[in-house]
Amino acid sequence: MIHEIAEIDVTPGSEEAFEAAVAAAAPHFRAAKGCRSLKLHRSIEMPSRYRLVVEWDSVDDHIVSFRESDGFQQWRALASPHFAAAPRVEHVSKVLDAF
Amino acid sequence: MIHEIAEIDVTPGSEEAFEAAVAAAAPHFRAAKGCRSLKLHRSIEMPSRYRLVVEWDSVDDHIVSFRESDGFQQWRALASPHFAAAPRVEHVSKVLDAF
Repeated sequence: MIHEIAEIDVTPGSEEAFEAAVAAAAPHFRAAKGCRSLKLHRSIEMPSRYRLVVEWDSVDDHIVSFRESDGFQQWRALASPHFAAAPRVEHVSKVLDAF
Repeated sequence: MIHEIAEIDVTPGSEEAFEAAVAAAAPHFRAAKGCRSLKLHRSIEMPSRYRLVVEWDSVDDHIVSFRESDGFQQWRALASPHFAAAPRVEHVSKVLDAF
């Protein structure tokens, strides 16, 4: 189990439309192999910056299976019109869950 | 309820010591006003990069109450010897919890 963290800057003024696009795209993630959860966080200091946090069984479930799927095309069609820049994507694994 | 996300690059080779330092410092967070959870994530692409994710009742609980506390000094004393650079700290609020 790993998390994808995609840091996404959207065009200022398109925040509401972007949030709606992510909600509309969520079923494409839910249907994807190995996809366990999807959350969207918005920066308080930089309100046009979001972090999409997606839990996957493995990195390959994200960067191979999902990226080659029709669901990925649907997600990008919905969300990318609001991108101010290419998302910065990283994968992390949890090493401590203190409390 | 908000999340602090601190992106921390540690000196290569000090990963194990840094993880132990965060575990040792966790009680100082647990004791802090408004602190609800603490998790540490390690980057898969950049293994010397971590994200400390701390849940607080408010931004002020983090940047006012905690940063002025003795617990913050204890945390920094434990962790900062491993920092390769100053942590990049941001606060986010969850706007979507799709599934």
